[in-house]
Amino acid sequence: MEPTIKVALLGFGTVGSGVYQMLTENKSKITQKKQVDFEICKILVGNRTKHQAAIEKGVPITTDFSEILNDPTIQIVVEVMGSAETAREYIIHSLEAGKHVVTANKDALALYGDELTRVAKENNKNLFFEASVAGGIPIIRALTDSFIADSIQEVSGIINGTTNFIISRMSEEGESYEQALALAQEKGFAEADPTGDVEGLDAARKLIILVKLAFGYRMKLDDFPVSGITQLKQHDFDAAKHYGFTLKLIGSAKQLEEGFTARVGMYLVPLAHPLAMVKNEYNGVFVKGEAIGETMFYGPGAGSLPTANSVVADILAISDRIKWQQTESFLPLVSNDYSWHQAGTLVTDALVRVGDQEAVASLVSQKLNGEVSKYGADYMYLSNITEQQLEELEANERVEAIYRKL
Amino acid sequence: MEPTIKVALLGFGTVGSGVYQMLTENKSKITQKKQVDFEICKILVGNRTKHQAAIEKGVPITTDFSEILNDPTIQIVVEVMGSAETAREYIIHSLEAGKHVVTANKDALALYGDELTRVAKENNKNLFFEASVAGGIPIIRALTDSFIADSIQEVSGIINGTTNFIISRMSEEGESYEQALALAQEKGFAEADPTGDVEGLDAARKLIILVKLAFGYRMKLDDFPVSGITQLKQHDFDAAKHYGFTLKLIGSAKQLEEGFTARVGMYLVPLAHPLAMVKNEYNGVFVKGEAIGETMFYGPGAGSLPTANSVVADILAISDRIKWQQTESFLPLVSNDYSWHQAGTLVTDALVRVGDQEAVASLVSQKLNGEVSKYGADYMYLSNITEQQLEELEANERVEAIYRKL
Ligand SMILES: NC(=O)c1ccc[n+]([C@@H]2O[C@H](COP(=O)([O-])OP(=O)(O)OC[C@H]3O[C@@H](n4cnc5c(N)ncnc54)[C@H](OP(=O)(O)O)[C@@H]3O)[C@@H](O)[C@H]2O)c1
Ligand SMILES: NC(=O)c1ccc[n+]([C@@H]2O[C@H](COP(=O)([O-])OP(=O)(O)OC[C@H]3O[C@@H](n4cnc5c(N)ncnc54)[C@H](OP(=O)(O)O)[C@@H]3O)[C@@H](O)[C@H]2O)c1
Repeated sequence: MEPTIKVALLGFGTVGSGVYQMLTENKSKITQKKQVDFEICKILVGNRTKHQAAIEKGVPITTDFSEILNDPTIQIVVEVMGSAETAREYIIHSLEAGKHVVTANKDALALYGDELTRVAKENNKNLFFEASVAGGIPIIRALTDSFIADSIQEVSGIINGTTNFIISRMSEEGESYEQALALAQEKGFAEADPTGDVEGLDAARKLIILVKLAFGYRMKLDDFPVSGITQLKQHDFDAAKHYGFTLKLIGSAKQLEEGFTARVGMYLVPLAHPLAMVKNEYNGVFVKGEAIGETMFYGPGAGSLPTANSVVADILAISDRIKWQQTESFLPLVSNDYSWHQAGTLVTDALVRVGDQEAVASLVSQKLNGEVSKYGADYMYLSNITEQQLEELEANERVEAIYRKL
Repeated sequence: MEPTIKVALLGFGTVGSGVYQMLTENKSKITQKKQVDFEICKILVGNRTKHQAAIEKGVPITTDFSEILNDPTIQIVVEVMGSAETAREYIIHSLEAGKHVVTANKDALALYGDELTRVAKENNKNLFFEASVAGGIPIIRALTDSFIADSIQEVSGIINGTTNFIISRMSEEGESYEQALALAQEKGFAEADPTGDVEGLDAARKLIILVKLAFGYRMKLDDFPVSGITQLKQHDFDAAKHYGFTLKLIGSAKQLEEGFTARVGMYLVPLAHPLAMVKNEYNGVFVKGEAIGETMFYGPGAGSLPTANSVVADILAISDRIKWQQTESFLPLVSNDYSWHQAGTLVTDALVRVGDQEAVASLVSQKLNGEVSKYGADYMYLSNITEQQLEELEANERVEAIYRKL
């Protein structure tokens, strides 16, 4: 007989039901490979009546978290319910009650990541969160296990599938922003209120998690510029293409000699860059390190089973550690200080969209430090311009959009 | 004081010196993150005089393996010397002497993988080999840790950087096969005798390792068709492009309803396929699973530091397990039986290059099962053709090359 590890799920929605499906349907395969058996013995939901059909099939639904918290035989709690506050509370209580935790919750991690990892460490319990960034892509494990001895220089990711889908429809199918957004909603990629996605906030939360693991830096949402895709115009893609680029919403962080820089926004991506091929609802994370050079991880960023697969991988990793009676928590608590770049020394290229022809002429005649090329009536491509000058342009009300080169 | 783990290297060449560099230069960072210290206390080489400069700097070079084998304080042996036979012997002796082993040696693993993992398991020691396939890409860890609960349907990889470089030069720069090979040799990507690379053998050994991890199937070199890039002609790329493809040397294995299929050879890759963007000396591994859907891992396939990074990640993973006093070996010994596909039921598309126009005409007039389209004087594109018919064509001496669709 294999040892049985008891698991509780907090949440039985898109991800939770996928986890349940994988752990029950692949039970014998997992047991054969891992010599361990799992039992999902409680599942917390908000609304019991919604799950009547499952209850009748014997799924152990509850609406009372204390049934999970007070059951000492439950060793792993899987938080897949969403929201930052309640999740934070339940994760902390679970860790303090001596349970390991797996979570897919980027909101809770971006806001309370430090606190949650500290509580995990204090209680010598594991807190795993592979599914929190780029759902189906094992990027967290790559950063914590595979690149841990390297010095990471850059992490740049297409980490929001909804906006990447909209961008792809605009760029490949010539749809307008409104058409593409409507299609994303129809396909279930975008929520009724898409604000968090289209304004870059969801990507920003994920970038905070990636930066912590790649650089050891603790960023908060106000520490770096965040913009989304709402200013995109169909014609922007032609202008970008003219200069050899495609446009992508990217969360990017770089360690430069002049300091650290991080941003979520629309970037000019060279057509030969690995991220240029990441289309539709897919995600991709590009990692550049001193030793490894350039790598890229491509895959689904969301969806019931891809995300569940990452959650299950975390459950299996924890079950190994339970078997080995590992008595310390896995996460390194490294927190490095960082110095933000000096905007005057950071040099890049950028495509700028300006409201009208007259404004372009007046801006071009300004003493800009770099070289200027015009495209059509309302675009200028600036080479070797400083971040400081770009920020000044951003403040100019005639400037509609600025796309930096990745 | 952190605990110190003693490590010995077998080999101090391209990879070995990279491992030495990373473990010594990043020492304090690793210690901070992992709370463990490493000491490289012996390095085995073949020729002592070659390493005089290192010896003078205090590098602990030896030519006597027994110094390592008989030192009970050495806990991890890192085999980076190459060759199958001696490596097999030293790995087995090390495991039997109670040491964990990290190896980058695809030749030894492809030939003796089952024996080596069995010996590791019998001795409750770990055998890690992240660097053996796609040097800088953490694909082994993805298969063993991240996708372990999923049912893998396909693994297809550009897993030989030398040939991918040659192919890229031919396809992007219009060079001939001979020119591209000469450049690869000049750049140090190809060896003086490039046989193992250009005939697909190196890729075949790596595919054997991937198949074992992804499907649990034990393949031998004679079990599946292997061809390389030597038959490539410059014009092939135009013909492929005409039908919407690029050509790549790929090791591919698929679990189909009609059975299992594996092959190393030149494939037609749709231009939108993630592997189409893997250029020059880079590697890429595409994994398709029931739950995860489509993912792709991109990065350097070789090189001193990228490969060393994978070796060091393995050393760190083992050191965790030493700290936790894990007493069983990590590798699952799953071996599944597989049924090879029936060539008559496996249907695909293929581009066929035929020696002369007359031969094309005669082949086209044959009763082929699928649709036939001609390109130029000497190409035919066959849609929905069975593997059996392709094998018959392959046996026809007028047929010069067959490129199957991935
Ligand atoms: N969906 C994805 O593809 C994806 C990808 C990566 C990460 N994630 C993350 O995974 C988490 C879950 O996402 P999801 O898409 O599965 O959400 P969902 O479909 O909305 O499901 C949420 C589940 O949690 C339950 N729940 C919510 N609040 C609760 C509360 N206060 N008390 C008890 N139960 C509560 C809900 O109960 P009822 O069933 O009663 O409503 C529901 O079963 C989120 O953090 C999300 O960001 C999702
Ligand atoms: N190079 C890459 O980028 C790469 C990438 C992935 C995997 N790998 C694999 O890594 C392994 C090492 O490759 P490499 O490129 O580092 O090889 P290499 O540069 O040729 O170095 C081999 C080292 O092993 C030593 N050695 C060889 N045979 C020996 C023997 N019988 N006894 C004692 N020492 C011996 C050599 O000694 P001397 O110094 O005295 O000659 C040399 O130091 C191979 O299995 C290779 O397939 C390499």
